[in-house]
Amino acid sequence: MPFEIRAAVRGDAPLIMALINELAEYEKMTDMVTATAETLEASIFDRHEAEALLLTLDGEAVGYAIYCFNFSTFKGRAGLYLEDIYVRPQYRGRGFGTKTFEYLKAEAQRRGCPRMEWVCLDWNSPSLEFYRGMGAEALPQWVLHRIEF
Amino acid sequence: MPFEIRAAVRGDAPLIMALINELAEYEKMTDMVTATAETLEASIFDRHEAEALLLTLDGEAVGYAIYCFNFSTFKGRAGLYLEDIYVRPQYRGRGFGTKTFEYLKAEAQRRGCPRMEWVCLDWNSPSLEFYRGMGAEALPQWVLHRIEF
Repeated sequence: MPFEIRAAVRGDAPLIMALINELAEYEKMTDMVTATAETLEASIFDRHEAEALLLTLDGEAVGYAIYCFNFSTFKGRAGLYLEDIYVRPQYRGRGFGTKTFEYLKAEAQRRGCPRMEWVCLDWNSPSLEFYRGMGAEALPQWVLHRIEF
Repeated sequence: MPFEIRAAVRGDAPLIMALINELAEYEKMTDMVTATAETLEASIFDRHEAEALLLTLDGEAVGYAIYCFNFSTFKGRAGLYLEDIYVRPQYRGRGFGTKTFEYLKAEAQRRGCPRMEWVCLDWNSPSLEFYRGMGAEALPQWVLHRIEF
């Protein structure tokens, strides 16, 4: 089987959770992860708070993407918000990230989204460069704010 | 009637659209507004892409807020994402923004959200200061990226 992008199914939750933990390690944020395979499964498959894609090569997990929909009052439409896109280190440099990103762009357009947005850590140079290559505009003038409960 | 915060109803769409245009003027982004009262009404009341609050004083429109829900893979839950909070200039300095923000925080907690997020322009000092006073953490290390279709 070649490289494949498919919608995640319920049984993928433990695998995706393992990949989320790998990404958190890369982002130096493991202390922020409180999700479990069970909460992830409930969020995606019961409450439909987000959608997930699983990336595979010869049936092996290569990475994942999770996205939801935000809203632009200026555009008056929902946009696709990419929460995570992750390719495991040993599978990088083979175009899987590009293929996944193009898939997401097509999905956003298919859903009628006027735009696609995401955030990237300012020290993550390989990703910043990847997004630039994908035609993204960086908007550092918009400062993310957060309150945790 | 005192200051009131209420869920917007279908008939409020033209009024909210007028307030969105006021905000766009303040943010120097009028050229980015393509929404109309009709598209806004369809997004909020037909497709439920976002929810809106109308702020009134003695029945007069004081401002509005529009929010949707994003998703945190680390938390494994949807968070409240505040797209817009706007108080008209002539009504500022009277605590209406604070009351609205507290209302939104309570709403996020009522919905089980682990966090509330939004973005703010880096030159908008009054708003940056307001959010700091509300207990928000600014996260400039997360750089917003966008592709428009």
